[in-house]
Amino acid sequence: MSRFQLDPRLAADSHFVAEGPLSQLRLMDDARFPWLVLVPRVADAVELIDLDDDAQQALLAEIGRTGKILRACWPCEKLNIGALGNIVRQLHVHVVARSQSDAAWPGPVWGSGSMERLEAPLRQERLQRLIGRLQPGFWRIA
Amino acid sequence: MSRFQLDPRLAADSHFVAEGPLSQLRLMDDARFPWLVLVPRVADAVELIDLDDDAQQALLAEIGRTGKILRACWPCEKLNIGALGNIVRQLHVHVVARSQSDAAWPGPVWGSGSMERLEAPLRQERLQRLIGRLQPGFWRIA
Repeated sequence: MSRFQLDPRLAADSHFVAEGPLSQLRLMDDARFPWLVLVPRVADAVELIDLDDDAQQALLAEIGRTGKILRACWPCEKLNIGALGNIVRQLHVHVVARSQSDAAWPGPVWGSGSMERLEAPLRQERLQRLIGRLQPGFWRIA
Repeated sequence: MSRFQLDPRLAADSHFVAEGPLSQLRLMDDARFPWLVLVPRVADAVELIDLDDDAQQALLAEIGRTGKILRACWPCEKLNIGALGNIVRQLHVHVVARSQSDAAWPGPVWGSGSMERLEAPLRQERLQRLIGRLQPGFWRIA
């Protein structure tokens, strides 16, 4: 049985925020959208439905909390939640705050234009804002 | 408090398959992809995270079963699961069987090209194949 290792493409395109009970919470490195990703620390997981029931429950709880944090940090028109994995097969769930004024509205963020990497001040601002909303008993920040 | 009514755009773009404990299961009217949609029968629901915990659990169970049915009917490279709602706000969850040879691979199906409506024989074939896989104690077909 192999050990969980974050996919190198996810590692390159996102920043660590916190560890939840099941998943690592990461901020996508894209200035266009407030965009988080949950990556379950389950080796070789590809499909949501291949997780066992307990892990599915844990992931659902994390998605719920992540959506609420995102919406509290960046009031938005709509949350978009997606598990695609056509390019990066390692199971990961996107939670994105969408606004009518954003670069892809009303289309999906996936496959839309090119990532605009976060410059350091904006990255720090986003991370600080997120971390301020994380419930310490649930998320581990360091 | 208002009563649940299927959004007319969802009604126009998909076909009834069955009722689950929480949601209506529908087949998208698009020949390009084996594509199902779950629509919780909850009036005014917009965000997954606004459902109460029991409803979220029920939806998760339906997503799991829907994914397994889809994969059994149409062996695929990857399932794509998404809750967007940027255009149709009524809460609905897409579960799509994706293949490397499909019209949008590896991009998302949402916002990709134009729907190709199912002609009657293909629609019947898809519905029959699905219905043959539905567990009768869980799904109501009529």
